[in-house]
Amino acid sequence: MPEASLPAPLPPGSTIGILGSGQLGRMLAVAAARLGLKTHIYCEESGPAFDVATSTTKASFDDTAALTHFAGAVEAVTYEFENVPIAAARHLAALVPVRPSAKALEVAQDRLVEKEFISALSIPVAPFRAIDSAADLGAAIAQLSAPAILKTRRLGYDGKGQASVEPGADIEAVWRMVGTKPAVLEQRVAFACEISTLVVRSQSGAIGIYDCPVNTHETGILRRSVVPAHLAAADIARARAIAQTIAAALDYVGVLAVEMFHLGGDAPVGQRVMVNEIAPRVHNSGHWTIDACSVSQFENHMRAVAGWPLGSTARHSDAQMVNLIGQEALDWQRLAAEPGACLHLYGKREARAGRKMGHVTRLSPKSCPDDSGPLTAPGR
Amino acid sequence: MPEASLPAPLPPGSTIGILGSGQLGRMLAVAAARLGLKTHIYCEESGPAFDVATSTTKASFDDTAALTHFAGAVEAVTYEFENVPIAAARHLAALVPVRPSAKALEVAQDRLVEKEFISALSIPVAPFRAIDSAADLGAAIAQLSAPAILKTRRLGYDGKGQASVEPGADIEAVWRMVGTKPAVLEQRVAFACEISTLVVRSQSGAIGIYDCPVNTHETGILRRSVVPAHLAAADIARARAIAQTIAAALDYVGVLAVEMFHLGGDAPVGQRVMVNEIAPRVHNSGHWTIDACSVSQFENHMRAVAGWPLGSTARHSDAQMVNLIGQEALDWQRLAAEPGACLHLYGKREARAGRKMGHVTRLSPKSCPDDSGPLTAPGR
Repeated sequence: MPEASLPAPLPPGSTIGILGSGQLGRMLAVAAARLGLKTHIYCEESGPAFDVATSTTKASFDDTAALTHFAGAVEAVTYEFENVPIAAARHLAALVPVRPSAKALEVAQDRLVEKEFISALSIPVAPFRAIDSAADLGAAIAQLSAPAILKTRRLGYDGKGQASVEPGADIEAVWRMVGTKPAVLEQRVAFACEISTLVVRSQSGAIGIYDCPVNTHETGILRRSVVPAHLAAADIARARAIAQTIAAALDYVGVLAVEMFHLGGDAPVGQRVMVNEIAPRVHNSGHWTIDACSVSQFENHMRAVAGWPLGSTARHSDAQMVNLIGQEALDWQRLAAEPGACLHLYGKREARAGRKMGHVTRLSPKSCPDDSGPLTAPGR
Repeated sequence: MPEASLPAPLPPGSTIGILGSGQLGRMLAVAAARLGLKTHIYCEESGPAFDVATSTTKASFDDTAALTHFAGAVEAVTYEFENVPIAAARHLAALVPVRPSAKALEVAQDRLVEKEFISALSIPVAPFRAIDSAADLGAAIAQLSAPAILKTRRLGYDGKGQASVEPGADIEAVWRMVGTKPAVLEQRVAFACEISTLVVRSQSGAIGIYDCPVNTHETGILRRSVVPAHLAAADIARARAIAQTIAAALDYVGVLAVEMFHLGGDAPVGQRVMVNEIAPRVHNSGHWTIDACSVSQFENHMRAVAGWPLGSTARHSDAQMVNLIGQEALDWQRLAAEPGACLHLYGKREARAGRKMGHVTRLSPKSCPDDSGPLTAPGR
């Protein structure tokens, strides 16, 4: 896209609307404030982001009058979760720029569409089948061979809406476990580790990519992200190229997270990195960027949304980020006293089981140069 | 003070009141949010801090009903500027903990009281005389010898309320330049450089001290702060000991900034570091701690106010902080595009001459170990 056709960047003092009131919205609002930008949170429920935003609206995502009023109060809109109703995003997009676009939401909201989209870019994903019935499931298991995972096409996160399919499983029971809803059966991948790539793309198509963290999940929830990943340079380059390809294919603006499986050294070169799923937003596996980089994923997302130049994605330190889940956050006094720990608490009232309450990032001196790859020169 | 007598730390979700709505209040509010603490800004005028606070009150500092209402809405009160009316601080302190205490305000609000307080601790300050009339001024000039600086005792900042006294100056004219208000005449110190020490002291008396920056002023306004200072270890140790002594003497809670002159190698050892003035608050010369430390001055201030353990004051990078004053902030697009620059804008509407609009911190890899000194073990 020629530079001349780009809208002017939104100047400091402008207001960015954010759909969603969770901790990601909270960290986006704080990052926007650093740049002199105001934020306006729109959500059905109040949440952690309400405490730090300049303005807030509590209204339903199908309240078109409230959405219209919100659009009139902001210069651009972004979102902190991928399950924003498409109709709401489209309603807003007719009134004010929405970044990333509704297209990214549509792809990311449906696991089947997502996998077909990524496969069409010649990027490996786990073998999968669309499942609309128990009969489909039986046929697919025969083709893909168990163990596999059945995942609802829509509204799953943090391991919800998923069921394992072990050899000899009761097909009807598994089908009921995901609520007999349209789903995708994925062959379970014997991965060596999980990584993610956080790519930010500006309105002019400039790209920045943070160093890939290695991620560890427990009971479907992210527990830990560690940089550097210490993987082979060719695999890192492949992960970066994949993320850049997906961002460009979506004409994406903002931070896009691509979760990937790394299959280990035995897999053929070029097949060692496989996409698990994408999130069209800032991502938990990038929280370490707040403390280990000059410009965090949150700030770079807001820069892209506001049409600003991207900031550097370089890191000054190695980092280990650990989530504080449920009652773990009650240990805040000990964590606050730990020398050098960067403690982040989201201000949620109730420490419910499985709820992300905060995180801790532990920095150490940088042990190796930043990741780099052949396709990622612009924006770095 | 025995631990048992300390109040319990304020848990996440508590609200800290902040008197003042400027950029320091804004950065304090953002730092509080990181810890899950809410903030409530109280000020006569709205300002940059209003955009990021959970709650705001716009009312006069002599509106006792509004102050009482504010006190009822917060668990503790702190301030972002040293000219909070003492009566307001005392009114609040009768209702809710105010940290740092009104004592620190009283000392810092009056240059004469401040200099007498510091001198009484056997800490060097520039030779000074109290001035209440043109006649006093004439006599003091004869004693101290010009060049000197006449400064009003109250309400001076960023070089306001000051007049140079050169040899042969018109005494009546100089007296009128400071508004014929009670003042202090200080001998002008031929310093090699200006430094500051940012010390944080917890409710239990634990101490943390950030590395001393070297500060450069232009027309009375801070232009640049650079760490490390690359001064002799004995001088750094002395600067740290001085700051700790003042903080302890004030039974201080929070971040205290001590601005100092470094007289260079020719001065006698032990006399090479002299106090210029103190600020009972977070300080412009500590803004680099946001980007170069795991725990910034703002977060450590809020930790102290909330009764939390102090965070580390260690830095992971060298840093150069430059203020953006007046129209310099209009250059935000170029600054945003500068690789590796950490850009901070305060969201002020009007870029008036002399107004602090933002700052830029440039990081580089850490070139030497942290400062340390004999008196600063606790809290580090």
